[in-house]
Amino acid sequence: MTGRLGFLGPAGTYSEEAAAIYDRGMQRVMYSTIGQVTEAAESGQVDQAIVPVENSLHGAIPEVLDFLIRSPRIKITNELALRIRNCLMVKPGTRPQQIKRIYSHPQPLGQCRAYLTTHYPDAEPVAALSTAGAVTDMLASAIPAAAIAPARAAEIYGAEIVAEDIQDNQNNFTRFVILGPGDHPRTGKDKTSVALSFSNDRPGLLYEVMGALATRKINLSKIESRPTGEKLGRYVFLIDFEGHRTDPIVVDALEHIRRLTTMCKVFGSYPAKVLSTPPE
Amino acid sequence: MTGRLGFLGPAGTYSEEAAAIYDRGMQRVMYSTIGQVTEAAESGQVDQAIVPVENSLHGAIPEVLDFLIRSPRIKITNELALRIRNCLMVKPGTRPQQIKRIYSHPQPLGQCRAYLTTHYPDAEPVAALSTAGAVTDMLASAIPAAAIAPARAAEIYGAEIVAEDIQDNQNNFTRFVILGPGDHPRTGKDKTSVALSFSNDRPGLLYEVMGALATRKINLSKIESRPTGEKLGRYVFLIDFEGHRTDPIVVDALEHIRRLTTMCKVFGSYPAKVLSTPPE
Repeated sequence: MTGRLGFLGPAGTYSEEAAAIYDRGMQRVMYSTIGQVTEAAESGQVDQAIVPVENSLHGAIPEVLDFLIRSPRIKITNELALRIRNCLMVKPGTRPQQIKRIYSHPQPLGQCRAYLTTHYPDAEPVAALSTAGAVTDMLASAIPAAAIAPARAAEIYGAEIVAEDIQDNQNNFTRFVILGPGDHPRTGKDKTSVALSFSNDRPGLLYEVMGALATRKINLSKIESRPTGEKLGRYVFLIDFEGHRTDPIVVDALEHIRRLTTMCKVFGSYPAKVLSTPPE
Repeated sequence: MTGRLGFLGPAGTYSEEAAAIYDRGMQRVMYSTIGQVTEAAESGQVDQAIVPVENSLHGAIPEVLDFLIRSPRIKITNELALRIRNCLMVKPGTRPQQIKRIYSHPQPLGQCRAYLTTHYPDAEPVAALSTAGAVTDMLASAIPAAAIAPARAAEIYGAEIVAEDIQDNQNNFTRFVILGPGDHPRTGKDKTSVALSFSNDRPGLLYEVMGALATRKINLSKIESRPTGEKLGRYVFLIDFEGHRTDPIVVDALEHIRRLTTMCKVFGSYPAKVLSTPPE
C-alpha cells in the first residue's frame, strides 16, 4: 500500500512504534497532537492515520471517540494492539550502579514502580512529557541517569538498553486504530465497532440491542458505557462485535438496532486481529 | 464519623482534594501509591480509603479493580465525582506576560492545550510527576514560570492563581470510590457495583445477565467489559445498577445472575450521588 500515514510523535514513543509496525510501505507523517492527526485524516492530508484508543499514555480515548462520532467520512479500517514493553536505557557507558535519576512519562514510571523500588531504590524519578522526551532529557543530563522508554527510542536516539520488560504487569497493551476514508473489505474473520445512544435511559433498551445480537448468535467482543459531556446520566454505548457490516446477518442486526436507538454510528468493520508485539 | 481516611498524596493533587471534600472529620493519612492506600484499608491501618477509579491521572483503574476482586473484606461504601478544574498559578509577583515555562503532569498539560496555545504560545511545557510536584517545581524555578494544578495546591504551597478552569473540555470528572470494611446502609436511592465473569464467551450469557436486571426494571448506570490479564478473549464485566443489594428485587436479581456466572463479586452498595465540585 502506498500513501501517507499520520501518527502522533515524537519519534521513539509507543505511538511511533505502532506506526512503524503497521507501516505497509506508507510514508509516515508525524503530528504533535491527536487532534492534528485526526484532522489530517479528515481533510485527506494523509490517507490513513493511526491513533491510540485504549490504555494509552495520551488520554486520547474521548478525543478519538468524539472524532469518530462526528466525522462524516472517516472509518476504522484496522486495529493493532501493541504490547507495552518498558526498557531501561542509559547514555552509552553509564553503569547501572551510577544511576541517580530515572526519567520517563509519569505513567511508565508508575508501571515500573516495583522494579524501580527493588533495583534503584535511591534513584530520583523525573517526569518527562513523553517517553521520547525522557530519553533526550536523560542523554542531556549531567547527573548519571536512565530513561524508561520503548526499545525503539534507544535505537533512534543512540541510548543503551540495560533492562527490558521492566513493567510490573506483563499484560499491558495499548490498542491503536487505523483511520481511513473507508473501512476494510470483508475477510471472513472481522469485527465491527459501533456507537449507540438512546433518547432516554429506559431500562431494557440496551438489553434489547444486545438481544438483537444474541438472538443472531453474534458474539460481543466489547461493551462500554460512556457518560456524554452534554448532560449527566446520558450515555453513549460502544460495542464491538464479531462479523463484517456487509454480512447479511449483521446487516439484519444493525437494522434492528437502528429501530431501538437515536444514534447508531458504525465506526467500521475490520479484520479481528490477534495482538501484535514489536519485532524482536 | 471519626477514624482514619487513607488517600493518595502528595498534598495539592486532585486525590488530596477529593479526600478533603469527603473528609467527615476523619484523620487523613497520606500514602504515596494506590497499592499502599488499598493495603492500608485491607489491613485496617485506616478505617476508610479514597481512591480514583476513572479518568484519573494515576492510571489507577486496573489496580483498584484487581484489589476489589481479590479483597475478602473491603467494599465500596461511597463514591465522589470531582470536577477537574485546572488552574494556572505562579509565584506571587510573577506577571503572566513573563511566563516562559509551564509545569504540570503531562495529562493536565494536554487537557489545557487550546488555552495554552492561545495565551502562552511561546511558553515551554515542562513535565512533573504530579500537579503538586508541578507547583513546587514552578516555585523553585529561576526562569519565570507557571504551573497547572488544582486551586487547593495554590493555597497549600503559597502560589497565586492567575486563571481558573483553563481546561479545554469543561466536562472533565474524576470518579473516586471510598473503600471500607463494609458497604453503606440502604438510603432508598442507592447504587450497586458488581464484577462478573463467565467460564466461556458464549454469546448470550451477558445478555441473560442484563435480562435478569431489565425484567426486574432495574436500571443500569454503567457497563464495561475489561480484558483480563490471564488470557486473551476473557473478560470481566463491571456493572453498576440502581438499588441496594439488600432490596428484595436486587437480592432476587443477584441470585439469578449468580446462576449464570462463574464469578459474581458485589463490590458494594452506596448512595447514588450527584457530582461534587470542590467548595468555592
